[in-house]
Amino acid sequence: MKIFIVGIDGYLGWPLALHLKKRGHKISGCDNGLRRQLVMEEGANSAIPIANIYERSIILGESNMHYNDVLDYAETESIIKGVMPDAIIHLGEIASAPYSMIGAKHCAFTNTNNIVGTLNLLHIIKDICPKAHLLKLGTLGEYGTPNTDIPEGFGEMKYNGRKDIFAFPKAAGSFYHWTKVHDSNNIMFACRIWGLKSTDIMQGPVYGTRIKAMGSDSKNNTRFDYGQVWGTVINRFCAQAVVGHPLTVYGSGDQQRAFLSLEDSMQCMTLALEHPPNKGEYRVFNQFDRVYSIRELAEIVTSVADSLGIKAHRAKVENPRMEREEHYYNPECNKLPELGYIPAMSIENTVVQILKDLLVHKDRINLDVVLPDIRWDGSKRQSKMEKL
Amino acid sequence: MKIFIVGIDGYLGWPLALHLKKRGHKISGCDNGLRRQLVMEEGANSAIPIANIYERSIILGESNMHYNDVLDYAETESIIKGVMPDAIIHLGEIASAPYSMIGAKHCAFTNTNNIVGTLNLLHIIKDICPKAHLLKLGTLGEYGTPNTDIPEGFGEMKYNGRKDIFAFPKAAGSFYHWTKVHDSNNIMFACRIWGLKSTDIMQGPVYGTRIKAMGSDSKNNTRFDYGQVWGTVINRFCAQAVVGHPLTVYGSGDQQRAFLSLEDSMQCMTLALEHPPNKGEYRVFNQFDRVYSIRELAEIVTSVADSLGIKAHRAKVENPRMEREEHYYNPECNKLPELGYIPAMSIENTVVQILKDLLVHKDRINLDVVLPDIRWDGSKRQSKMEKL
Repeated sequence: MKIFIVGIDGYLGWPLALHLKKRGHKISGCDNGLRRQLVMEEGANSAIPIANIYERSIILGESNMHYNDVLDYAETESIIKGVMPDAIIHLGEIASAPYSMIGAKHCAFTNTNNIVGTLNLLHIIKDICPKAHLLKLGTLGEYGTPNTDIPEGFGEMKYNGRKDIFAFPKAAGSFYHWTKVHDSNNIMFACRIWGLKSTDIMQGPVYGTRIKAMGSDSKNNTRFDYGQVWGTVINRFCAQAVVGHPLTVYGSGDQQRAFLSLEDSMQCMTLALEHPPNKGEYRVFNQFDRVYSIRELAEIVTSVADSLGIKAHRAKVENPRMEREEHYYNPECNKLPELGYIPAMSIENTVVQILKDLLVHKDRINLDVVLPDIRWDGSKRQSKMEKL
Repeated sequence: MKIFIVGIDGYLGWPLALHLKKRGHKISGCDNGLRRQLVMEEGANSAIPIANIYERSIILGESNMHYNDVLDYAETESIIKGVMPDAIIHLGEIASAPYSMIGAKHCAFTNTNNIVGTLNLLHIIKDICPKAHLLKLGTLGEYGTPNTDIPEGFGEMKYNGRKDIFAFPKAAGSFYHWTKVHDSNNIMFACRIWGLKSTDIMQGPVYGTRIKAMGSDSKNNTRFDYGQVWGTVINRFCAQAVVGHPLTVYGSGDQQRAFLSLEDSMQCMTLALEHPPNKGEYRVFNQFDRVYSIRELAEIVTSVADSLGIKAHRAKVENPRMEREEHYYNPECNKLPELGYIPAMSIENTVVQILKDLLVHKDRINLDVVLPDIRWDGSKRQSKMEKL
């Protein structure tokens, strides 16, 4: 299959390129280098050293990596015309809740970048390759934490004595998460009117440093972010553990979310790609391994660290977000298991791997970017931390 | 009350300024002149002659009209800082479904203009005047045509045996209508995290040429659009009737929508303004007088025209949109009647007024812009028309 990856230089994009190439697919893609730039603006860098874009394009070999922004319609259209892909994977979005909450400029940029980028791809697919499957990364955060189960995209719901099949109502928790909702709505509409096919993946936060397709060559490494802006929680906890910083649990830690490993993220996206939807079909996958509370995750990382001789501590940090800390949480997950998804590894074994990989590079971890001062209430006060 | 109107030069913005000024409020506002420009790009002009922005600013007197784009954050912030309004009415959006469906560029522009404009206002209100009431124009089109009643924004819904109060799921029918959904979601979120107050008005299409506050001075006229891009259905039917063009009913004409007159739109927005929500409250009003099918509207306009001696015909036009033509439709409307809303005039009397106002200016109506060639399927073919 000819697969084009938008955001091929990212945390997920790069390993996915390696993974799909190894499975025999023909890979090309584009990236505008924005993630590298924005992490540097935060004052950090990938904790694990990574190849530059030029080196990566050599690793991918005959395949093509384009330095391009999907907001540039003409250039993107011409690249995709040259490829004529069977599938386009869209990972090229600004994927940070705190970034979108910094202020008006960052919020507007996140919205324009994500929404217009996706709309451009939809129009290009319609005009150039209408049979291509658009695999788009959404987030489980689109749903928020309703007091009901969460179906995979659509569910029969009842209001005032009558019922219908509804796109399940969204209740995102940051301006960034809302951009993903906006995308989902636009994609659903484009599939309906233009007969496009898309899989919209409601993915939980991903953790991990490696996948099998990387092998042992460190040039294949993917980036690893850990700060308040770009780090996701398990990765951040691991980075904090190796440098002796308390694990920063926001609020009570009773918030529940659904997580999956980097290897599982690759596995799931591959299953979606290799089992595409029908013409005109907009389907939604809830993509995760298991639900954990943030408190449980901190305990897992602490105890795994302990087994490696690393003394990790937990701290309670004033929650910079505004979110329910105690809530019902039950996202359904049937479609990927039906296609054959089986989680590859236990969370404990993955955390062992992360910690070992980070120990070698602990001098690259900058503690200044870890404590949150981007607050949902709009103030710029640094959250208070109390050791537990 | 100090009221700031974004989009003060528009079809609704200008009469609202006159109406609220007459009620003793202190009015200021801004506009970027985009509607005038885009209608000219279509090859049309307001069927009814209107004063230019400079003349209008003189009519409003001591009040202020700023030539400004809300996408310009710094300038907008500085203007609003100078006013310190008690309420901001946001009418400054691109409000055309067909415009957003022309192609990638128009779609992206509609999205950026509407979404970033609203996000900028939210950030400015938070920073400058957090107690100001944001009255935002959404559209009943956000809901689509579900097989249930449509609550005013929120409803208790049941999924899989459990229930919650949900923001009622949206199912818009054009990229433009989706931008209004995106706005609604962003505003709801901003109210929750920043304690802002907002009324989001799900308004039906508006028809009419006049309101009482205009008096008899033609300088007070508001614009009147009738083409495929900028005209709404009743206004378009009236324009077609006076020039002897068949009334263009899209598809079967069984589509049902909820309409209200220009005078009622003013009345409803005034009720919302004079009964503001509480701090942190995001409330939704469904704002309309009555539900009609498109076929009924064509019949009303034809028969009113007949009573004025105008022979009007109806035509069936291939529907350029993709929409259900037969469907359940029952939007609830309780909040405005509870505040005292009583429709001011029958649709027949309003149509008499529109037709009389247009007859004087029938030479200004350009028939070239009336038949739709912007199609939801992405083709640029002109819809076939068969006389009935």
